[in-house]
Amino acid sequence: MTRMKPDFQTNRRVQFAETDAAGVLHFSNYYRYMEEVEHAYWRSLGLGVMAPEGDRLVSWPRVASSCEYFAPAAFEDEITLSLTVAHVGERSITFEVEFELDGKRLALARATAVCCATKHGGSFEPIAIPNHIRTKLPANQPAEKKT
Amino acid sequence: MTRMKPDFQTNRRVQFAETDAAGVLHFSNYYRYMEEVEHAYWRSLGLGVMAPEGDRLVSWPRVASSCEYFAPAAFEDEITLSLTVAHVGERSITFEVEFELDGKRLALARATAVCCATKHGGSFEPIAIPNHIRTKLPANQPAEKKT
Amino acid sequence: MTRMKPDFQTNRRVQFAETDAAGVLHFSNYYRYMEEVEHAYWRSLGLGVMAPEGDRLVSWPRVASSCEYFAPAAFEDEITLSLTVAHVGERSITFEVEFELDGKRLALARATAVCCATKHGGSFEPIAIPNHIRTKLPANQPAEKKT
Amino acid sequence: MTRMKPDFQTNRRVQFAETDAAGVLHFSNYYRYMEEVEHAYWRSLGLGVMAPEGDRLVSWPRVASSCEYFAPAAFEDEITLSLTVAHVGERSITFEVEFELDGKRLALARATAVCCATKHGGSFEPIAIPNHIRTKLPANQPAEKKT
Repeated sequence: MTRMKPDFQTNRRVQFAETDAAGVLHFSNYYRYMEEVEHAYWRSLGLGVMAPEGDRLVSWPRVASSCEYFAPAAFEDEITLSLTVAHVGERSITFEVEFELDGKRLALARATAVCCATKHGGSFEPIAIPNHIRTKLPANQPAEKKT
Repeated sequence: MTRMKPDFQTNRRVQFAETDAAGVLHFSNYYRYMEEVEHAYWRSLGLGVMAPEGDRLVSWPRVASSCEYFAPAAFEDEITLSLTVAHVGERSITFEVEFELDGKRLALARATAVCCATKHGGSFEPIAIPNHIRTKLPANQPAEKKT
Repeated sequence: MTRMKPDFQTNRRVQFAETDAAGVLHFSNYYRYMEEVEHAYWRSLGLGVMAPEGDRLVSWPRVASSCEYFAPAAFEDEITLSLTVAHVGERSITFEVEFELDGKRLALARATAVCCATKHGGSFEPIAIPNHIRTKLPANQPAEKKT
Repeated sequence: MTRMKPDFQTNRRVQFAETDAAGVLHFSNYYRYMEEVEHAYWRSLGLGVMAPEGDRLVSWPRVASSCEYFAPAAFEDEITLSLTVAHVGERSITFEVEFELDGKRLALARATAVCCATKHGGSFEPIAIPNHIRTKLPANQPAEKKT
């Protein structure tokens, strides 16, 4: 990975309920932290990850997520989370979140979410990313042909 | 508390993600276990805790919960959960759940839930417990006048 | 309850993973929020909730917790949490945490924790609250005779 | 992936606290389910995922995890989890867990864990998988030279 300037950054302190009997942040909680910074990023753009548009709800269910773990985090560690928009497709977006503690890389997570419309009671229907959203995303990402 | 024969019983193994850095089941997870056994109890009655009735949804939001902790539980402990319907009111129900490990009492939890109807997008509206539900609940519980 | 000036206050935004299929903050997560504000309070006193003292670890397992729920909280709500030290005993402390959203009371939680010493591999042993901790706690709380 | 007979299989019902405001099983909880079936697999072999050996503790921290999501799961769905040991290395093991509901594939998760020894207070030290563990793992996995 070429190191890029992140699109969004925030800090997050490890809470007690998020640790496990090995004394470290449970591996599943990196995904929750990742989602928290994603949602904070949407808010920083003036957008919401679940946004009503007329009678439908536009949301972003994940189709894939992954994480590599380099070093553990402990209770009360204050982790720096750096989000980068790695790719914007026709209907999808890929985020990358780096976890650092005092300059040491703890983990690197990735997730791809697909833009979907839902009507109440209905299922998730993939749609092209609406323009009012796309224009707020990083411009230097080449649009992919197909997701 | 006079010891009663429980209305429902099940076992639950402590999972790793549910422990904390103190090496024990996190205190908040007793409430999740309690809810799991409540829902299993509803299923055993042929009922659901969230049941569509026409265009409304009948559900049971909690108005109070509490737990006393007597001894900790560790990873992989297989806990016995015993649910007792402690009280059935006009619009509410109170459950009590005892947590035991090898005959030793670990905790005692209590929760009161109110029968509510919701229409999509609307708020929770307390209603009298529908008869088709009430008739399945323990008969020896004196109905209270008001919840 | 006579309304007191809280001993500590912080804000907490409701995260997506903390909501449930009823669209609201899951009732068990109020206990996690409560613990977060307790630990932030300890930190504000220059103390830790798990503190090594020589070869033992001083920590505060809960013996009781409870919560009353008045109104639900939704995804992205930013809740104000106000912690009050309700009681300091010989060996225990009772916290009360109020949850408010835009001046509306959502919930009121309470927990009693007992000061314990643990040696590695051993069990929790209740001890009198060490003086260096007690002197930092609110002085206007009459010490109880026995917990 | 060539479809293999799984090494272990179990069922898991989606609990209410595990759903989110989109009405489905939260994406991070697939990792918790995956871990539960891994630990059940260890138990089925007569092993534990955290096993004391003399004065050290042998455990299996993850170095990578990933999941693809094909279809959502709802509250009370009873999911079939099929675990396959995809690879056994010198010091690591890779599990694959398939999530199915009524014959429909919901998700496919993967995790690589490294065999580590820890002494109390120390850090995780990667070690070769002890023989008494290796002999219980599927024999038809070619050992890799290095992990």
